[in-house]
Amino acid sequence: MTHDRPAPAGTPVPDAQQEREAEVTRQVLASFDGCADPRLREVMQSLVHHLHAFVREVRLTEREWNEGIAFLTRAGHITDERRQEFILLSDVLGASMQTVAVNNAAYGDATEATVFGPFFVENSPSIELGGDLAFGAAGEPCWVEGTVTDTAGKPVPGARIEVWEADEDGYYDTQYGDDRIAARAHLFSDADGRYRFWGLTPTPYPIPHDGPVGGLLAATGRSPMRASHLHFMVGAPELRTLVTHIFVRGDELLARDAVFGVKESLVKDFEAQPAGTPTPDGRDLGDRPWSRVRFDIVLAPDGA
Amino acid sequence: MTHDRPAPAGTPVPDAQQEREAEVTRQVLASFDGCADPRLREVMQSLVHHLHAFVREVRLTEREWNEGIAFLTRAGHITDERRQEFILLSDVLGASMQTVAVNNAAYGDATEATVFGPFFVENSPSIELGGDLAFGAAGEPCWVEGTVTDTAGKPVPGARIEVWEADEDGYYDTQYGDDRIAARAHLFSDADGRYRFWGLTPTPYPIPHDGPVGGLLAATGRSPMRASHLHFMVGAPELRTLVTHIFVRGDELLARDAVFGVKESLVKDFEAQPAGTPTPDGRDLGDRPWSRVRFDIVLAPDGA
Repeated sequence: MTHDRPAPAGTPVPDAQQEREAEVTRQVLASFDGCADPRLREVMQSLVHHLHAFVREVRLTEREWNEGIAFLTRAGHITDERRQEFILLSDVLGASMQTVAVNNAAYGDATEATVFGPFFVENSPSIELGGDLAFGAAGEPCWVEGTVTDTAGKPVPGARIEVWEADEDGYYDTQYGDDRIAARAHLFSDADGRYRFWGLTPTPYPIPHDGPVGGLLAATGRSPMRASHLHFMVGAPELRTLVTHIFVRGDELLARDAVFGVKESLVKDFEAQPAGTPTPDGRDLGDRPWSRVRFDIVLAPDGA
Repeated sequence: MTHDRPAPAGTPVPDAQQEREAEVTRQVLASFDGCADPRLREVMQSLVHHLHAFVREVRLTEREWNEGIAFLTRAGHITDERRQEFILLSDVLGASMQTVAVNNAAYGDATEATVFGPFFVENSPSIELGGDLAFGAAGEPCWVEGTVTDTAGKPVPGARIEVWEADEDGYYDTQYGDDRIAARAHLFSDADGRYRFWGLTPTPYPIPHDGPVGGLLAATGRSPMRASHLHFMVGAPELRTLVTHIFVRGDELLARDAVFGVKESLVKDFEAQPAGTPTPDGRDLGDRPWSRVRFDIVLAPDGA
């Protein structure tokens, strides 16, 4: 392939050439006209429209096309049951947060959503109210409490609250390559919509950056670091499932989160508690400092 | 995830919501501002612009986003040294032909380019002028001859001509899962720019459709069939490398090629020759019928 030098940006494309390129797009769009599923047809035709517009706009060279194919191939080969490079790619390109934005329109004072990320797993351990999700994960204990209500302020009892986070070394359990389950759990809000548990004070960490997505970030001068955060997914009947994080006020990474997940409303005060400070539930932490944070969760109606 | 129902097409998006979505795109575009390579910055920012526009335009649901991630994951896992599902995906979405169009502007009477496909391999066997590329592949013999010239009509001696094709069962050598090398070769034009070889009369075949791309074609009511064709890649110093096919006039698949590769100028007359018809080089084919075709190749200047 010899076509490895793009034309200088802004080089005009002659009308006849523009027409040849537009004809390719028309043919491909028409190939989906017979699709029996109207939604699938709409999605595929829009995808083709924008994909072709991108190729034309940047005058993509054949070498760059080959590099794109090779990038996707590497991403596919590094992806397994523990590692999801395509979610990382969507995250660092902001496609994940754009999808979150489209699907979570503001509704009253409903808590804002943010990116799901690649580290949620099904069948997390169940803990009681006030239980500890660490299961041996290293980190400073953090008391998390709050309420779950709807946008009319009515408490939501029995809401399922999934929580997951990285340990103080910056790794989720799934990244260790063994079968450990740690720093994740689910619990349910009580009859008054209240919840409380012991987690770990969140610490910053890089997204996995030893693969093609890490290479892309390095090549474009971007950092792989995520602002410190604690993941939540909260669901209850007839309410919109909320996927979100809380972030740590004062974290210098808030302004340059690698996956664009930070929203001001999700930045919370994690209050540092010196060693020896009495704990809310009387737990004896010995000589360990701890922290506490409050996160009141407001769920929008389903379909909002 | 509960957000699995798209809003009805054409549902207006409130201004405040549009602004929230646009802000996501602005943040992501800005994250590439520090990229030291201006071309990489241009490509990534255009990609982000169009990817986000797609998500917003179709109001992509979170379930659809998940399906997209799962599709790419399956494509990655089926791709290996013999199978390239990402090239197939690019091909059936017409991104390959759009890239070909962008990089091969019309120039004088230069032969038109078409899609590269996933079946080229490096280090094909060398054959002499008049040699046979079958190497045991099944199919009707086809005498192929022509000239290589530049757009001024000047013969191009020593042009490297790579040729590859499927056998009469519709498979390339690489699809058999063994180490065979068949129905592919390279040769060089003679001092007068002429070339000639024995190939196989092209027959139609489906692109590999037992993977995710095949699933996409089935779900959208599209056929996986390719019009019958013979691949060429022709290169010579100071001339634009040509990647193209020739197609068979009369093939009913010409109008619905799965990868949009057909151009009228590339449709050639393959003349059927009954068994016993004398061959151009005196080869004795016994009781086998054969065919012949002429393909005169015109190369544009490099950089055209």
